[in-house]
Amino acid sequence: MPTRIITGDGCLVKGSSYLSGLGKKALIITGKNSSKMNGSLDDAIEALENEKIRYKIFDKVGEHPSVELIQEIYDRFRDEGIEFILALGGGAPIDASKAAGVLFRNREISAAEAFSMKNLRSIPIAAVPTTAGTGSEVTPYSIITDSSMRQKKDFGQESFPKVAYLDSRYTYYISRENTANNAVDALSHLVEGVLNKRATLFSDTLAMRGLALFSEVKDHLMNGNLTAEDRKKLITASTLGGMVISQTGTSIPHALGYILTTDKELPHGSATAAIYRGYLRLFNNDSRYQAVLKTLGFSSSDEFTGFISDLTDYDLSLTEEEIRSYTNASLNNLGKMKNHPYTIRKEDIEEIYRVASLKKSAVR
Amino acid sequence: MPTRIITGDGCLVKGSSYLSGLGKKALIITGKNSSKMNGSLDDAIEALENEKIRYKIFDKVGEHPSVELIQEIYDRFRDEGIEFILALGGGAPIDASKAAGVLFRNREISAAEAFSMKNLRSIPIAAVPTTAGTGSEVTPYSIITDSSMRQKKDFGQESFPKVAYLDSRYTYYISRENTANNAVDALSHLVEGVLNKRATLFSDTLAMRGLALFSEVKDHLMNGNLTAEDRKKLITASTLGGMVISQTGTSIPHALGYILTTDKELPHGSATAAIYRGYLRLFNNDSRYQAVLKTLGFSSSDEFTGFISDLTDYDLSLTEEEIRSYTNASLNNLGKMKNHPYTIRKEDIEEIYRVASLKKSAVR
Repeated sequence: MPTRIITGDGCLVKGSSYLSGLGKKALIITGKNSSKMNGSLDDAIEALENEKIRYKIFDKVGEHPSVELIQEIYDRFRDEGIEFILALGGGAPIDASKAAGVLFRNREISAAEAFSMKNLRSIPIAAVPTTAGTGSEVTPYSIITDSSMRQKKDFGQESFPKVAYLDSRYTYYISRENTANNAVDALSHLVEGVLNKRATLFSDTLAMRGLALFSEVKDHLMNGNLTAEDRKKLITASTLGGMVISQTGTSIPHALGYILTTDKELPHGSATAAIYRGYLRLFNNDSRYQAVLKTLGFSSSDEFTGFISDLTDYDLSLTEEEIRSYTNASLNNLGKMKNHPYTIRKEDIEEIYRVASLKKSAVR
Repeated sequence: MPTRIITGDGCLVKGSSYLSGLGKKALIITGKNSSKMNGSLDDAIEALENEKIRYKIFDKVGEHPSVELIQEIYDRFRDEGIEFILALGGGAPIDASKAAGVLFRNREISAAEAFSMKNLRSIPIAAVPTTAGTGSEVTPYSIITDSSMRQKKDFGQESFPKVAYLDSRYTYYISRENTANNAVDALSHLVEGVLNKRATLFSDTLAMRGLALFSEVKDHLMNGNLTAEDRKKLITASTLGGMVISQTGTSIPHALGYILTTDKELPHGSATAAIYRGYLRLFNNDSRYQAVLKTLGFSSSDEFTGFISDLTDYDLSLTEEEIRSYTNASLNNLGKMKNHPYTIRKEDIEEIYRVASLKKSAVR
């Protein structure tokens, strides 16, 4: 994981010198509102001005960045002499930045073309996460929506940010609901990184530390009273989750959950929570899963899935036809399916969707 | 730490595809004998031939690579179209490769000139450690001897290898004495990474895992009966040590020990062991040091320093004049001195050298 990580309150301004090696002109890519409210945009401007780096701002990244948006960003700033991107926000602006960065580096290739190519490089990216969940600041992944296919998938170019700034103060103002949703995302990266065919001693070391941090904040996460210290732990766990899936990739739940997000508009965290109820039954006798539960401080798998379900709110009801259709679509996501440590049958996937669709009370 | 790590028996041949992205012609840099005896040179050739990569071999790296040797390597192969270096061996060939790689990339700069410059880049390096100690396969450091100054210091160019192959089978044939010396080196990286002003949650996570692995092999290390499983743990702990010092740097013992190696010809591990006896007294009331001892499975600091002393063999006797001279030289190594978490006085350094120079029996 080649990203240099700078941490702590005020680290973006204090550590602005790490930006100076990235270029003389930056494009700040962010969302519509949050970076103005949480102070990260002001800090970014101060950091760039400290280093005498000129900049432009694109602040229109919404929740699910599309191929068209990536093209729009490039078209708008193509003649501005942009040398690097400073991404501010949750997963969406950071992922959009990684994809747009590829276009700035490969000027003759369109976003749609790049989406089906491999090994394209990007101009440098500096990432400032303002949520604690995606871990995108330390991953090569860029999840982009292919509107024509109604599908979320990785842009595919291995764009690791050069620098990531972790300042948990930016996460203070996120609603309880979104904080929980993001936290489930971070948690799922850690869990899927352990329950993964590609897990190594190195990825496990990072994952277990992330799970231990999560266990320390989980009660406050549930009752909504996160302290500043908890927020630090949460963003660190999220970054550890990103480091882990950079090595292992994610697994079945991400393959199954993406469809619920695009088709049922379930937030990513809620979709993951729904899927986990059935997914984790595949690991009933797995010693590594027992270690995950122990590190998280749960005494049983039911307690764990109950916790995630209670933390996120969702209402999902799937017809048998939807279950069959989603199952077929998921099975095509071979990259994620092959990370599952055991053989997985079509019926297993259908059953996971069936359990996801049950009312919470029916699962308990 | 941007190096891709490939692990396991036979990983160099099985994972030869990671070499193909590095270039079409390689220079294998290695020592005189060991890579022929431990099988790594044969594997390297097989891996390169698998990928249809042409190669040249330089097999004359001795124990303390000098600036002159680096220049010699470049001069000899400058017109061979070398695109990357495959380094095989202990710290010396890997460090020499990183330094030589800088010359192949910056063709108008001499080794002596590069030694006093900053931020030079290298052609790609693939590193295959055949000892478990230095961790150089995952660090940016390249320790080169400046013969005119009789000084070992970092070549200074941040040459992280692109790929590292960890195959512990290459370490099977190392003598008990050298294995122990290398192990103390790995251990010192882990310990100095924790007892370090620049330690972070990330570096601590890796360091503690390395110390835990070390604790599992320490008895076999002492009695000389390392199993294949122990060798795997030892090379993994060594790589974790490298990852840690890539983030934190080393501290006082490395500054003080280098002088004993250049001036008293003490092997690096023995020099470290000698220095640790006095150095660790600075941490008597440090809770992080207590955590180190606990993870290593030692019940007291004396038990720990006794273990390292027994593991390595050295005979050191310093005059008061030498102690003063070494102390002054060490204090100039500001990079390492400033990693020490507490204020350090000249008298403290003198005392560390004085304790290092005592007979073992006098310390117990």
